[in-house]
Amino acid sequence: MAGFKAAKRFDKMKLQAQWIWHNGDLEILQLNRCLTSRYERGIFIPPFWRMDDFSKNVKFSKEFELAAPETIHITANGKFNAAVEDLGRGKGGYARDGGRLELEPGKYRLTVSVYNAAALPALFVEGETVCSGAGFLSTANDHAAGFVGHGGFYDKACPPGEFRFHYKNVEYTVLERDKSGMLIDCGRELVGRIGFERAAGDGKIKLYYGESLSEARDTENCELTDVLDAADGCRAEIPKAMRYARVCFDRGVTASEPKAEEEFVPQARSSRFRCSDEKLNRIYETALRTLALNTREFFLDGIKRDRWVWAGDAYQSCLMNYYSFFDLNTARRTITALAGKPPVTTYMNHIMEYSFYWIVGLWDYYMYAGDSEFVRRMLPTALEIVGFTERTRRNASGFIEGRDGDWVFVDWGDLDNSGEVSVEQIVYLKALKTVVKLCRVFSTDGAAYEARFNDLREKLFDRFWDGERQVFRYALRGGKPDGTVEKHPHILALIYGFLDGEKREGAIRNALLDPAVRKIVTPYMRFYELGALCLANRHDFVLNEIRDYWGGMLDEGATSFWETYDATQKGAEKYAMYGRKYGKSLCHAWGAGPLYILGRHFIGLEPAEPGFKSFTLTPVLSDLEFMEAELPLPQGEVKIYMDAGRLTVFSNGADGVVRFRAKPRLTDALADKTDGEYLYYNVKKNRELNLILNGRANA
Amino acid sequence: MAGFKAAKRFDKMKLQAQWIWHNGDLEILQLNRCLTSRYERGIFIPPFWRMDDFSKNVKFSKEFELAAPETIHITANGKFNAAVEDLGRGKGGYARDGGRLELEPGKYRLTVSVYNAAALPALFVEGETVCSGAGFLSTANDHAAGFVGHGGFYDKACPPGEFRFHYKNVEYTVLERDKSGMLIDCGRELVGRIGFERAAGDGKIKLYYGESLSEARDTENCELTDVLDAADGCRAEIPKAMRYARVCFDRGVTASEPKAEEEFVPQARSSRFRCSDEKLNRIYETALRTLALNTREFFLDGIKRDRWVWAGDAYQSCLMNYYSFFDLNTARRTITALAGKPPVTTYMNHIMEYSFYWIVGLWDYYMYAGDSEFVRRMLPTALEIVGFTERTRRNASGFIEGRDGDWVFVDWGDLDNSGEVSVEQIVYLKALKTVVKLCRVFSTDGAAYEARFNDLREKLFDRFWDGERQVFRYALRGGKPDGTVEKHPHILALIYGFLDGEKREGAIRNALLDPAVRKIVTPYMRFYELGALCLANRHDFVLNEIRDYWGGMLDEGATSFWETYDATQKGAEKYAMYGRKYGKSLCHAWGAGPLYILGRHFIGLEPAEPGFKSFTLTPVLSDLEFMEAELPLPQGEVKIYMDAGRLTVFSNGADGVVRFRAKPRLTDALADKTDGEYLYYNVKKNRELNLILNGRANA
Repeated sequence: MAGFKAAKRFDKMKLQAQWIWHNGDLEILQLNRCLTSRYERGIFIPPFWRMDDFSKNVKFSKEFELAAPETIHITANGKFNAAVEDLGRGKGGYARDGGRLELEPGKYRLTVSVYNAAALPALFVEGETVCSGAGFLSTANDHAAGFVGHGGFYDKACPPGEFRFHYKNVEYTVLERDKSGMLIDCGRELVGRIGFERAAGDGKIKLYYGESLSEARDTENCELTDVLDAADGCRAEIPKAMRYARVCFDRGVTASEPKAEEEFVPQARSSRFRCSDEKLNRIYETALRTLALNTREFFLDGIKRDRWVWAGDAYQSCLMNYYSFFDLNTARRTITALAGKPPVTTYMNHIMEYSFYWIVGLWDYYMYAGDSEFVRRMLPTALEIVGFTERTRRNASGFIEGRDGDWVFVDWGDLDNSGEVSVEQIVYLKALKTVVKLCRVFSTDGAAYEARFNDLREKLFDRFWDGERQVFRYALRGGKPDGTVEKHPHILALIYGFLDGEKREGAIRNALLDPAVRKIVTPYMRFYELGALCLANRHDFVLNEIRDYWGGMLDEGATSFWETYDATQKGAEKYAMYGRKYGKSLCHAWGAGPLYILGRHFIGLEPAEPGFKSFTLTPVLSDLEFMEAELPLPQGEVKIYMDAGRLTVFSNGADGVVRFRAKPRLTDALADKTDGEYLYYNVKKNRELNLILNGRANA
Repeated sequence: MAGFKAAKRFDKMKLQAQWIWHNGDLEILQLNRCLTSRYERGIFIPPFWRMDDFSKNVKFSKEFELAAPETIHITANGKFNAAVEDLGRGKGGYARDGGRLELEPGKYRLTVSVYNAAALPALFVEGETVCSGAGFLSTANDHAAGFVGHGGFYDKACPPGEFRFHYKNVEYTVLERDKSGMLIDCGRELVGRIGFERAAGDGKIKLYYGESLSEARDTENCELTDVLDAADGCRAEIPKAMRYARVCFDRGVTASEPKAEEEFVPQARSSRFRCSDEKLNRIYETALRTLALNTREFFLDGIKRDRWVWAGDAYQSCLMNYYSFFDLNTARRTITALAGKPPVTTYMNHIMEYSFYWIVGLWDYYMYAGDSEFVRRMLPTALEIVGFTERTRRNASGFIEGRDGDWVFVDWGDLDNSGEVSVEQIVYLKALKTVVKLCRVFSTDGAAYEARFNDLREKLFDRFWDGERQVFRYALRGGKPDGTVEKHPHILALIYGFLDGEKREGAIRNALLDPAVRKIVTPYMRFYELGALCLANRHDFVLNEIRDYWGGMLDEGATSFWETYDATQKGAEKYAMYGRKYGKSLCHAWGAGPLYILGRHFIGLEPAEPGFKSFTLTPVLSDLEFMEAELPLPQGEVKIYMDAGRLTVFSNGADGVVRFRAKPRLTDALADKTDGEYLYYNVKKNRELNLILNGRANA
């Protein structure tokens, strides 16, 4: 009986073969597909930066020892050969008859070379004890071998390739119907495709999509269109962003009612946030939906436009994601695809600081998600980016400066980003600091990066900091200050912890809060600005900003948040951008910023150790009557309820601490620790912590 | 009447549109196809080095001015958009309706973005005055733009892609026929495919190819096989090297007589060489055929195996080609494909010195073919290779040394190529010298390369030259001589002109001619050895070597020259290599070496100015009664007849000089010039030069 049970256990432990590929290549293949799916009114818009490509010629290998004879079946996606070396007996040969190997007990090295010019070279090895999976190595024959990419592909008949979306039918309302067609409303923003089970006639079916009703109605100017040949089962090839669609039939075409399908990626988990302000609750829900819609094969910037992966945008999406869906698959795919292939010869999306943000985000991934193995794999890319920057973008003064076709973006707006730009130095400093920390974690020598960090930080404050006015100079040109002061460098230096004492106060007073300094207008930079204001304890101000800005979009009928919003724009004007009537994206990932701001700065959750092994909560109620939230941890979640008199915290995912700066009078618990600035109360996993508060904590 | 003629002339001058692509990418696409067409008995053998790939996302551009309204039609191989900017009026837009642009007179910039993941992104622009061709620029969005690739593709319906071979039917003899099939003999080595117009039955048709009769008969061990399903029109997919083929029908299969087709690249020109020695004449003819068979989409190493492009082999093929077919298309394709894409991260074929030979060959191309524009385009790759070498392969002693997965090849044989290897320094020195010369020609600053050249040459003689024994040490390990002397460094130092005076004499006496130093056994290194011996004026010795070695193969029935030949091997043994019964290639490009040796060192033709604008002839009759030859020049050819009493030279391609070292008594002409070592006689284009000789000149 015991033996039988053991046998069954052994059977359960049997390895499951899975498809493996050259690490990073599936993501690159899917990225390229994603980046080349953008159209504007039927005009194809490819990316204008260098694209990497997956390796066509990949060699997989694995050493193993067999205690008993074993038959191994080898399947590949592509032309292949499988060579096996008998390491003990020193002989070898190729698998024949379609990849079958019959092996006696012994020690072996299996090497499978796979070539595929059209699709992803991938391998599936099935034996009793030898199965393709995490332990295999691969190389593109470039002197570098590493562990293979793997995960999620267990069906031998379905090798990894294009990303597999989910689809569901969408109920829509017909708003208008006339002899030439109809106008439908899906009720909310989505990525969908319209098709016809039955269609016939000599002509076309034309589809005009709209994120807004005006856009769908304006068949001359709407951004997205499709033209179908009228035939049974005809359907738009590439699903598009829409809420509305105008369907027009050419004369002579007959068709069944349109079928609308949503294309999406389901999320297994989601955060929850509720508070006493119903508007904030609706903002939170809409932000969740906005991020969910942009969370596809990768974190996209917007589903209508660009539907591309921008490293700077994705960096923010990742942060929002840690406070909402905690979707690590999409985060890893995005980080991996952006990394591309070594060597680094251009910046991500050809934007200098975007590669730096990518490095900074790698540390976030380590802190929020853990998964050191993944971060370790990405570290070489981070070092490559720094090496590339030092070799090619460091000028004689020791500052970094964009060259050739680099885009020094910083932010949309009237900024002159030529010369030595403060923000570039600051984001690069943060990248260097991140690299130093990563080197420490992964036992890599980071001394040179640390020296460079110290050197550049000193140079930054020496040349960019105006000690008299207590502000950063925005840029130097020919070594001379350009005379402008902008909020941007102050925001980022605050966020990244490069300011303290007098300088910190100066930056807040003379840049962040000084009405004479130009306002930040893009939600992209507001993401950092609101974070910086929270770090400066301006929570009430931030909450009102959220109410005004995001609440304003809701008042305009938004079902997802926009690329940018200006309350003064009315009517059709509010949809225009880039000189086009409907150029503005109405479902833009960076519009979902409140997910992060509320989770990180109001609920105040942060990982205290890598992989959220423990957390810190610094809740700030601000002007709310109450707030409650469930926020994801890698395993489980943390729940919090707070009002002016009570705080309840429950975590089933990790231990943690709650901390209070304002030293509230607490009746049911003594602080577990204090460090002068904060009082700390321990949160034990699976044990509810209840604190009686007397007043608004951390305000 | 005059006006009419002018109009006709204008009409004739009308531009012809042609397909254009990102420079180098067509060659890379074709190379990848070539490198992945190798099979051994049905087992796919991909290359084991890093392969480059063509760019999928290419942006083409062109600025132009229109004097009259013009309609431009744009066609692309791939998804595309065509944007036109009106530079005068500052407006722009996209071509619609399938790529049609109607333009008013004005100044424009046309930018066409083409994406194709599966096939080569290419562009075809047709207008009255605006046609795609040489003047267009392209970029892979990597900050680098250059002139497009173009040439030979004028049919809008046929975009550039896979290489287009020629085919012709081959008459064969049926040597044996039995109930299971037959054995056919094509009479000579070729690349061919066998097919069946009619075939039926439930079974396979199996093909066993043989370069030799033994190989085709040995169906268990022959290198190349095919298995066809019996069906009308069935045919081997990939043509294979063969002279013989055993055709076997499964029981129940019926088929028409096999049809054999040769796949080849026709040559427009060919050199001619005849002399008093009939064996040498047959050797020359067979060498021509050997090189012709290996001159396909690229210069291949061998048509049976590896049927790959190896930079070291191709470098020799190019030299042979300048003395035979003068096929610049294949030369350019080969040089371009090997260059691959920047940045350089591995050596060509992962062999260190192969990249150096590639650089040296670039200068040859400049001297023999001219075409500065092409060489200018390749110069960045040469500089990249040197930069990569200096960054990654230069050790603390200042020598270069293979690392990681580098193959330091030098030559087949029992050589220890670890540590600092003399030959690598010497070939690298030649590459550096070449780069200095190229920089001078193309007005690029080459001072750093020159300094490095001087430094390394000094180091080489300081550490590798044994002044006492007057020989090169083969290698240093841990800074110490390894104690061996080999012919290789001496051969290459002689060939590349790094030895003179006492050292030159020492190298010839103590290495090249010393029987105690190990013999060179591969035709690959013999190519250099015979050249070095000619430079050392050992022509008689070299001629006998050719008679023995290449003549020996003819005596064995060779119709093309082999990868290697050892007269002592008899019977089946002579076909074996790499541990396989028929592993040896019987049609190997480097077997065609006599083309170069006879043309360069006996006929003695050399370019005196880039592009053969003028030539030098240094004919050496050696032990021959007479010799005559026609050798190609870029335009036209040079013809020479020589015996002990007479020399006739006629060139219709360029002026030149004939020179004599031995100061023969000449009765009909006075020397035009003398420099102490040589007497020079001018050869004027299209005017025959006749000299009466009295004895064997230049011997």
